[in-house]
Amino acid sequence: MLKEAIFHDNTIRFVHAKSRECLNFRIRVGRQDMKRCQLIYFSRTNPDEKKRVDMVWKYRDRWFDYYEAEVCFKKVARYQKYYFCLKDRRGKVEYLGVNGFTATEPEDGVFEFLYANEGDIYEIPGWAKGQVFYQIFPERFANGRKENDPEGCVPWGSTPTRENYMGGDIAGIHQHLDYLKELGVGCIYFNPIFQGDFNHKYATTDYYKIDPMFGTEEEFRELVAACHERKIKVILDGVFNHTGIHFEPFQDILKHQEASRYKEWFYITEYPVSISHHNYECVGAYKWMPKLNTSNLEVAEYILKVMEYWIREYHIDGWRLDVADEVDKRVWQRARACLKAKYPDCLLLGETWGYGLNMMQGDQMDSVMNYVFRDFTRDFFAYEAIDARELDHRINQMLSSYFGEAKHGLYNLLDSHDTERFLTMSKGDKRRLKLAAAFQFLFPGAPAIYYGDEIGMTGENDPDCRKAMKWEQEEQDRELYGWYRWMAALRMKEKCIREGNYVTNLCGEKEGVFGFIRFDVKDCIYVVFNRSEEENRSYIPVREMGGYQELVTGQEVVSEEILKGEHFYNGDVMVYEGKIGICLEPYAVKIIKKINGGR
Amino acid sequence: MLKEAIFHDNTIRFVHAKSRECLNFRIRVGRQDMKRCQLIYFSRTNPDEKKRVDMVWKYRDRWFDYYEAEVCFKKVARYQKYYFCLKDRRGKVEYLGVNGFTATEPEDGVFEFLYANEGDIYEIPGWAKGQVFYQIFPERFANGRKENDPEGCVPWGSTPTRENYMGGDIAGIHQHLDYLKELGVGCIYFNPIFQGDFNHKYATTDYYKIDPMFGTEEEFRELVAACHERKIKVILDGVFNHTGIHFEPFQDILKHQEASRYKEWFYITEYPVSISHHNYECVGAYKWMPKLNTSNLEVAEYILKVMEYWIREYHIDGWRLDVADEVDKRVWQRARACLKAKYPDCLLLGETWGYGLNMMQGDQMDSVMNYVFRDFTRDFFAYEAIDARELDHRINQMLSSYFGEAKHGLYNLLDSHDTERFLTMSKGDKRRLKLAAAFQFLFPGAPAIYYGDEIGMTGENDPDCRKAMKWEQEEQDRELYGWYRWMAALRMKEKCIREGNYVTNLCGEKEGVFGFIRFDVKDCIYVVFNRSEEENRSYIPVREMGGYQELVTGQEVVSEEILKGEHFYNGDVMVYEGKIGICLEPYAVKIIKKINGGR
Repeated sequence: MLKEAIFHDNTIRFVHAKSRECLNFRIRVGRQDMKRCQLIYFSRTNPDEKKRVDMVWKYRDRWFDYYEAEVCFKKVARYQKYYFCLKDRRGKVEYLGVNGFTATEPEDGVFEFLYANEGDIYEIPGWAKGQVFYQIFPERFANGRKENDPEGCVPWGSTPTRENYMGGDIAGIHQHLDYLKELGVGCIYFNPIFQGDFNHKYATTDYYKIDPMFGTEEEFRELVAACHERKIKVILDGVFNHTGIHFEPFQDILKHQEASRYKEWFYITEYPVSISHHNYECVGAYKWMPKLNTSNLEVAEYILKVMEYWIREYHIDGWRLDVADEVDKRVWQRARACLKAKYPDCLLLGETWGYGLNMMQGDQMDSVMNYVFRDFTRDFFAYEAIDARELDHRINQMLSSYFGEAKHGLYNLLDSHDTERFLTMSKGDKRRLKLAAAFQFLFPGAPAIYYGDEIGMTGENDPDCRKAMKWEQEEQDRELYGWYRWMAALRMKEKCIREGNYVTNLCGEKEGVFGFIRFDVKDCIYVVFNRSEEENRSYIPVREMGGYQELVTGQEVVSEEILKGEHFYNGDVMVYEGKIGICLEPYAVKIIKKINGGR
Repeated sequence: MLKEAIFHDNTIRFVHAKSRECLNFRIRVGRQDMKRCQLIYFSRTNPDEKKRVDMVWKYRDRWFDYYEAEVCFKKVARYQKYYFCLKDRRGKVEYLGVNGFTATEPEDGVFEFLYANEGDIYEIPGWAKGQVFYQIFPERFANGRKENDPEGCVPWGSTPTRENYMGGDIAGIHQHLDYLKELGVGCIYFNPIFQGDFNHKYATTDYYKIDPMFGTEEEFRELVAACHERKIKVILDGVFNHTGIHFEPFQDILKHQEASRYKEWFYITEYPVSISHHNYECVGAYKWMPKLNTSNLEVAEYILKVMEYWIREYHIDGWRLDVADEVDKRVWQRARACLKAKYPDCLLLGETWGYGLNMMQGDQMDSVMNYVFRDFTRDFFAYEAIDARELDHRINQMLSSYFGEAKHGLYNLLDSHDTERFLTMSKGDKRRLKLAAAFQFLFPGAPAIYYGDEIGMTGENDPDCRKAMKWEQEEQDRELYGWYRWMAALRMKEKCIREGNYVTNLCGEKEGVFGFIRFDVKDCIYVVFNRSEEENRSYIPVREMGGYQELVTGQEVVSEEILKGEHFYNGDVMVYEGKIGICLEPYAVKIIKKINGGR
């Protein structure tokens, strides 16, 4: 037994309340080291009545396996003492308690879960779980009203620069809601729309106003209503890490200097403050975006008020929070506590470019922008820089980093307004984008489309990735659009894709061939990718014998018996009844489901 | 290289801000697996200027070594990318980045520390670091004023029961402050003194009143002032997990039932509520202590107001928070954010009986009651149930569980009002208590004396551990008192004991013989225990050659050369120049310091 690999402590990643009555326990052990992991638990007040459950294998990355057990009680979960019984491949048994390992059941020195408070329950809004997101950069989506175009607007479709404007606005978005509805979008994430500087509006001037070049507050209110009519949720970009220089409190400092009552709102390094001297902290090195002192309680309250205002007054469904990982965490803790009490369904989605572990401890964000997903999807499908095995390891490392339901809320993107577009990363090879999009839509989490990706738009990194949306049908790749639309519809139809488990079942035979299973208690879907120029024939293992259908082509297939001595990926921890022979064209994906349901 | 043992992620336990300019990085590796661990870091904006520092070995438990590096910048720490270079005992080198190991320096996929906000800095109040605490159970410490004695008071020194009263009060405490000062106490922790039920007052009736049987608010104000005059800090017991049944909001519910405006303050399981039906959640199963709904925002604000009131109006120095681990964490997050903004020096000390990991992430408590310390100290010194090696493992497991400065603030107790007294656990063997007290006072953290332990009081668990304090000199063990007093004075004199590093340097030769080093850049103190009936002769390794003094006896000793091939405990990670021969009587401790300073 590889004891160094074994880990459990009472932090939320390893034991957490799913509800006030249900607890989820997790243990990490060495990869392929265990034959069986059991959780033994008992009430502090009734130590003689011990219960024992087999833990379920959940993830396997490069070095570790993760097992979980869910235990529900009739009342609030409290005073539950527990330890683990581990049996390794060679049959050796060890018990794990709070002071380490023992050969016999520990008498004391066991773990204890004390009490499930509401604040311990981490729950993402139901609507966001597995939802299809669509990101709109408002200046570049559609120009619905010429009157609000800024002066010197360049024609729609001009080469985007850091400075130019093309006239995109709220009216334009409103006019194309049916397009989004048809595509299968369930939530729109808008890049900033508040009054501010630059075409991207990340330099906010007024958090309570819609930027006039995008329209009026009334138009925004109507837009939200129109979205809601179509069952589309709306989240706004909350830029609270920094402001623009025209934000009133910052202007007040420029005017009154040290006498300004707002001087603690920013990080002033020297007086007299001036833009030209750049003697204040900024985001990055952009002197147009002074960093807010989010550790200041007044600033924290201001941010909370703004966040609540747009939910209360305009009925938005949540916030995407810009540079969330550089804002004082106490802002998010307070915002979550207050907002969720009144608006439990509002979504809090934080921007981060790595693992969002600190924001995802249940007390801050519901979800983060999953650039970790972006990275491995890009590396496997676009760059072809990693093989299937590495992909599998990175997938499982990511999934096991978060706890509970988190994975179903992660904002899984391929690209954004801050990156090269995926099709461009793929050197224009549409086949790779199609595979990646299928991967994204069939993977746990919330797939997010960056506007225009679905019709084949290309673009280098900012500003080129912020081109004007192409609305002429002949300029759109309608076949690609159809692919996205079909994928979105499939996801919405199949609950096991939105909320089911994930297990890799084909990996390592060839570097570009990769398959996984999505399943819940009712259904099961098998997915296989061939990211290579060679046709591939493989067998994938299935959990049940019977007739299956390949959903892309409609073709029917029948499962076969597994031969004696035939092994499958993760076959030591998954029970497979049969196998299906798959023939994959180059850069093809197959999606296979049992006919008449079943696992 | 044992890769399964290696761990780092960007959570606070592995990377945290010591100040806005200084970062502390930690990595866990296999026990005795590494020859060298290095941190390589660079600014996001200047990737070509990489810096490399050797990490310092800090802890070693049963399975792991922990290495740390501290890095300070001229400005606020931000956008620091980093990875690790690990060289194992056999000379094999691996780099660790965010996606795992690489044989060459990783190009991308490195870790990044983004921005050090104030809210990320975990700092315990300077005064509390390594401070000597004294716990007073007010009803049993001293009776200073007969007029406030409750009716039916039993004589001082009667056998304590759950129900009886002996008349202890604030006036009594006030009269004995010089006793505490002389003992070397730096902070008093009072068990509850607010108006409430039972002799322990854990069933609060009024959070704004001193219980009349203890005295008046004015007396308490004078007590705090008198403590402060003597440079003694005062912390109160905040019982916010539950109340007494006479607490007004609970009474309001009993009266108005479902119409009560406080009905959300408690967890009512059924109406009509009544004490006899016990249809509300309680702490444990005590129907006299209904559990507060601390997830309710109004309740959270109420708690915050109470906490601030006693700090603002009575100048108390902080709170010991009862059953803190069953209160909604959002209460503590909010309380910390608000209180520390105004009173950065106030101490927040949470009760827990196990590892307080969830409360010790920097956003809630400064410190926790360290029953984990109590457990291993009891098991080694009182029960003699574990050997030195197990003690070493459990010490290092505990120390490495917390991050940064936390260990210097931990409330290290031997016993409390909720446990058997240590002398009783030791079957009355005073030698064991003396060793344990020495261990407690020489160990990192804040040693806490439960009233009367220092004069040899005994007692089984509650109510027996709550006997009346013995004030007759002939009833006090004055020799023991002298031992405590000497230990407290030594701790206050030696900064390396209060705030220095800890390393075990003698362990494993005999089961009851254990030694450790406390050191900082300036000084170094060596401690050796013989917890056995046999005299013991050992060599302890020292970091510098020269003349030493044994502080208990005043005896001088000189270090000797280490022989070739002679090995010492943790000698692979510590540099030892010499050794000192120690002869330890049964149940003796030696404390050795270099003459004229030096490490």
